[in-house]
Amino acid sequence: MSQHSFTKIGVIGAGSMGSNMAMLFAENDMDVSVFDTKPENIDNLTTVFRDGLDAKYHTRIASFKEYRLFMESLGGASVPKLLVLSIPHGSPADEVLKDARPWLTRGDVILDGGNEWYENAQRRQKTLQPQGISYLSMGVSGGYQSARHGPSISPSGDKTALDAVMPLLERFAAKDPKTGLSCVVNMGPAGCGHYVKMVHNGIEQGILGIVSEAWELMYKCLHIKLDDIAMIFNKWGSEGELKRNFLINIGADICGRHHPEGPPSHVLNEVQDKVVQDADDSEGTGVWSVMEAARRHVSAPTISSAHFFRIASADRSQRLCVVENLGQDLGAARKQQVDDGFRDNFLEDLRLAVYCACLASFVQGLNLIARASEDEGWEVGLANCIRIWREGCIIRSEYIADLLQPVLEREGKIMNVLTLKPVGDEIRRTFPALKRVVATALEWNAHIPTLSASLEYYKYCAGIHLPSQFMEAELDYFGAHSYDKKSEGPGEVKKGKHHFEWKPA
Amino acid sequence: MSQHSFTKIGVIGAGSMGSNMAMLFAENDMDVSVFDTKPENIDNLTTVFRDGLDAKYHTRIASFKEYRLFMESLGGASVPKLLVLSIPHGSPADEVLKDARPWLTRGDVILDGGNEWYENAQRRQKTLQPQGISYLSMGVSGGYQSARHGPSISPSGDKTALDAVMPLLERFAAKDPKTGLSCVVNMGPAGCGHYVKMVHNGIEQGILGIVSEAWELMYKCLHIKLDDIAMIFNKWGSEGELKRNFLINIGADICGRHHPEGPPSHVLNEVQDKVVQDADDSEGTGVWSVMEAARRHVSAPTISSAHFFRIASADRSQRLCVVENLGQDLGAARKQQVDDGFRDNFLEDLRLAVYCACLASFVQGLNLIARASEDEGWEVGLANCIRIWREGCIIRSEYIADLLQPVLEREGKIMNVLTLKPVGDEIRRTFPALKRVVATALEWNAHIPTLSASLEYYKYCAGIHLPSQFMEAELDYFGAHSYDKKSEGPGEVKKGKHHFEWKPA
Repeated sequence: MSQHSFTKIGVIGAGSMGSNMAMLFAENDMDVSVFDTKPENIDNLTTVFRDGLDAKYHTRIASFKEYRLFMESLGGASVPKLLVLSIPHGSPADEVLKDARPWLTRGDVILDGGNEWYENAQRRQKTLQPQGISYLSMGVSGGYQSARHGPSISPSGDKTALDAVMPLLERFAAKDPKTGLSCVVNMGPAGCGHYVKMVHNGIEQGILGIVSEAWELMYKCLHIKLDDIAMIFNKWGSEGELKRNFLINIGADICGRHHPEGPPSHVLNEVQDKVVQDADDSEGTGVWSVMEAARRHVSAPTISSAHFFRIASADRSQRLCVVENLGQDLGAARKQQVDDGFRDNFLEDLRLAVYCACLASFVQGLNLIARASEDEGWEVGLANCIRIWREGCIIRSEYIADLLQPVLEREGKIMNVLTLKPVGDEIRRTFPALKRVVATALEWNAHIPTLSASLEYYKYCAGIHLPSQFMEAELDYFGAHSYDKKSEGPGEVKKGKHHFEWKPA
Repeated sequence: MSQHSFTKIGVIGAGSMGSNMAMLFAENDMDVSVFDTKPENIDNLTTVFRDGLDAKYHTRIASFKEYRLFMESLGGASVPKLLVLSIPHGSPADEVLKDARPWLTRGDVILDGGNEWYENAQRRQKTLQPQGISYLSMGVSGGYQSARHGPSISPSGDKTALDAVMPLLERFAAKDPKTGLSCVVNMGPAGCGHYVKMVHNGIEQGILGIVSEAWELMYKCLHIKLDDIAMIFNKWGSEGELKRNFLINIGADICGRHHPEGPPSHVLNEVQDKVVQDADDSEGTGVWSVMEAARRHVSAPTISSAHFFRIASADRSQRLCVVENLGQDLGAARKQQVDDGFRDNFLEDLRLAVYCACLASFVQGLNLIARASEDEGWEVGLANCIRIWREGCIIRSEYIADLLQPVLEREGKIMNVLTLKPVGDEIRRTFPALKRVVATALEWNAHIPTLSASLEYYKYCAGIHLPSQFMEAELDYFGAHSYDKKSEGPGEVKKGKHHFEWKPA
């Protein structure tokens, strides 16, 4: 095998991620061939490359509408090839692999850069391995801008093949501005790279909920002008707890963006309040994150509450029917008259509340990776996850990375991030702000599904006596479920020894 | 086939559900054979039957430790048999069916009464059908007391076989005290009976969260004595919105129950605050409900928040580590000094808040059944679900059943219960109480993951303008996700037509 000497790369899928990665590869001294099953996507590339790529690299890229020509440009069936898939998860990717099969040969390396369900990745690896074809999971995060300039990458799979392509990936990946290190680490065997990317998107979902709720509080309740919110987000994102928090940073751009033509108007104000990509199944990762948290018994209410909010937002027609049926908008965030002192205090609380809740989203995601890694024997390093999330990805958050990475490196295997001292210190410090914000937001009738779920999460994770005492008694009453006695100490996570016959059958 | 003439019934699995059903069958003129793979469960039956069954029926029951003798008592391999499975879901049930196979014959009917994953049920039906063996899903709810006196039953599967055993099931099932009707309806094809039972347990999970949180508010914050809480629950459960709400009714029993011997002490006070049956995988239905809600894009935050709270409660040792790490109990519900007027007002609010949140749990569960039924072509009638939940089951709630059943019968197919007029009226009426309770509970630092999630659910389901506007803009910024414009009206649940190049790659 001559994997280390790949000088050509084939990109299958010329959507926004694929085409931008193609340009990135071309700039990094690769000969790039691009293929797409949709001819219009290939036609489109002429403009994309003209506008987005320095002319001197244009000869490095060729685009194809025919499999045969595409594969031949990479050397055909007789030469080991490096292929990158950038296509929708599930059956589209299976179709592509099926069609590509006649040209695949021993020594080929396939980097699947889609948001794939990890079990699909494992299955493909198993199918292709006997032919000497290395199918590698490759989580790619950061959206199309990062795909163009350097994404965060979580590859996994056959170690020999991955070692061979790692130098390439290190060249392409985003660089941590602090250390210059590439945001790519071999995560472990088979599908775990996709799993890590899935959880990244789960954490992202939580943060998106949090930031959106903070936006509503400022815009709808405090009636702060969008251009001023842009400045607030800018300040938040430039220092302290939310430093280089990607979704805060771009929030500033979004709030400040006016239509380039016509009378002054904010682009944001024309955007409808519907998030449909879970509901229409075009994106799977958010859905899977919630399913995985449930399946593996990892409490993840920040992620799931944000998810169920998104889901409910998708069908605006139906929502309007519900409002009409109730004769009332139950979620009308109320405009507030507050003095400057109150406003400034609230905004500082809000900044810390956003941070505290973002931390909850990270904790839940990392705990899920830890659990899955333990269940599957992957040995994914949580510190490695933080390392690759330092730049180029959507959940980039420098302060949180600086908080988590050292302690995760020091502690090694950790099953619950909440047990780490620096994390505990930060939660204790910022929890009161989160609590005040939730109370105030409740008074103002703002939507806070994610912020309030994060607050409750901390309350029960760090709670000595929970109302589950009563729940346990109810379960024992009708289900003879059996309980542990308080006098026996904390005990283990297994069926208790005592049943009380509350009501004989 | 002579299914209609079954006079013998074989029960496989002699746990609390199986043994109680066996006694119920015996009292209903059946000859009952009981088998269990664990000999000790069979030995145990002597006492169970002596204490629990009138002597005149004892001759109707025989217990077996050997498959051969058990099957021969039912007529052996040459005679069509009626078998009831009451065993843990998944592989234990598969094992039992494998072992039973040599004695199974054409015309046999197997009623699987376990909490089975519906796809397992569908698979078994498919495997056994070619041999002329009818495997029927049979959701059985109500715990062991109901198993003894009449459970709520959701059967499904081959219509001919089910029609044949329906008269038996109608005899065994709980009877609605209002109409005398049996709480059993043929739900539809193959696994949908198990699906309905799974969702029942999901709704139950939501209500368990709600009631437990209400209990904490009364006991920990208002410091009401347990015997007095028993009286409050009793009153709540005897009239109005919580009338015959099973989990309120048994809550009264639980709060009032003292140890029968020794110095006076409440049994409840010895119960540890751990709910482990999801975490140790002995119960699957709660986990699956959350997974299914995510998979089918049905917003279900009441159910999932209660679930993630349960999950987190299971590992008390780890919780104490987190508390120690934080140096603080973030969830210490504070004792309040309030005057009687405040207390009475709060308790009335709490009663309505519990009702309003229980309604959210029902809405989410019914919407999930509606979605699954549509996806799978089951045509499950939501009104039928309410009908069988009127008696004998854990989510029994007369007021809610009286609210939902008539309108569901009238309207036929419904995809979102929130669009029904009587439901909207009730939410509008009781939502303010839920809101006040959540605000007060927040101030008191009580645990309210389920109550607050239910509040937020209503706010966004009946909200005209959601902060998902900002979320959608963020997704379009980095993901080129595309959005609908507000000016275009509500639109459909699919990818929008507009992308703004917030930041060129």
